[in-house]
Amino acid sequence: MKNTKISNAVINRLPRYRRYLKELEKKGVEKISSKEFSELIGYTASQIRQDLNNFGGFGQQGYGYSVKGLREEIEAILGLDREYRMVIMGAGNLGKAIYNYTKTFKGAFRVVGVFEIRKDLIGKKLGTHEIMDYEGIVEFVETEHVDIGIICVDRENAQEVADKLCFAGVKGIWNFARTDIEVPPHVALEVVHLSDSLHALAYHMNDIKKKGGSR
Amino acid sequence: MKNTKISNAVINRLPRYRRYLKELEKKGVEKISSKEFSELIGYTASQIRQDLNNFGGFGQQGYGYSVKGLREEIEAILGLDREYRMVIMGAGNLGKAIYNYTKTFKGAFRVVGVFEIRKDLIGKKLGTHEIMDYEGIVEFVETEHVDIGIICVDRENAQEVADKLCFAGVKGIWNFARTDIEVPPHVALEVVHLSDSLHALAYHMNDIKKKGGSR
Repeated sequence: MKNTKISNAVINRLPRYRRYLKELEKKGVEKISSKEFSELIGYTASQIRQDLNNFGGFGQQGYGYSVKGLREEIEAILGLDREYRMVIMGAGNLGKAIYNYTKTFKGAFRVVGVFEIRKDLIGKKLGTHEIMDYEGIVEFVETEHVDIGIICVDRENAQEVADKLCFAGVKGIWNFARTDIEVPPHVALEVVHLSDSLHALAYHMNDIKKKGGSR
Repeated sequence: MKNTKISNAVINRLPRYRRYLKELEKKGVEKISSKEFSELIGYTASQIRQDLNNFGGFGQQGYGYSVKGLREEIEAILGLDREYRMVIMGAGNLGKAIYNYTKTFKGAFRVVGVFEIRKDLIGKKLGTHEIMDYEGIVEFVETEHVDIGIICVDRENAQEVADKLCFAGVKGIWNFARTDIEVPPHVALEVVHLSDSLHALAYHMNDIKKKGGSR
């Protein structure tokens, strides 16, 4: 199965394709050509065809893509046709932030538990969730069939928490801690450094200013 | 000034360099060679030299980089040597999430106001901030010298809110709304689609499973 090695760049574009397809569906659009899709999404038509060819079976040459069909196929490729059970590790400001964010989800991703190392937070509430003691995480992951651990703890504790989650059997780690962590090869890892994005924004603001683009 | 056109890839790596340098500083490390830095950060030594050469003046061939000096230069390049005043647009779950996240910041980025379109939220509190009426945003940006607008409103309102912020004079937009928006060339834009990252995680989890990597 050599051709299953899809580049990360392609994978990272799929959620974006899906978002646009969903908006098209809402507007009642049923078919779209790669050219029309290109104008909408801002990638070239050949890039779009190439990306989707990675997964094969999107054919329909000359007829365009079925918006619903393509959206469903992308969701199946991404694995969005099932539910994921998640735990939030860390109930500080970062954990609260991510918890509030997960409440905007509809569907596939569900928070089933919130855990904390700091004893003073254990037993308190985060939304509808009672904050649980980190000591119980391994058992919880097993009995509750947790798929994803979201790491929102301090930099100093991030690797240890990741190690314990992987040991407990999660299949994916979503890391928001302000440090890079390592996971074994059988666990998937996605990292979000929100502050990196903000720092890049600062750079671009100053770059525009330097080039005389500001008022 | 031809050489001021730095690729986005380089700019997006700078915050990461800075994070590692800060951790080194905390540990009391004063000098680091590109080879040692490479082993730590996971880019090749030549990549590191090439990235930093974009900005010139990091020289010290054979002596390694001064950790503090390099960190300060990167901060100056990113524009982190000044304060940024930010407004959060939208006080729903997404706005709450980002507000909680900003509380983890130390230093350069400060929330100075929270705004909402929905009348039922206006006047309520988000943390220490009274949620203000969206109608007053243009005046607020001018009188409070707001630099950055953080967009946390619904998809349907994102472009209108961005337009108003740009008209009011913000220099940067940090977009968390689940849609792509456009801004005029004198305004910098950074986009965070957290759900895209989560969907990529789902893909990688399923990919590992398909390849027999799961237990």
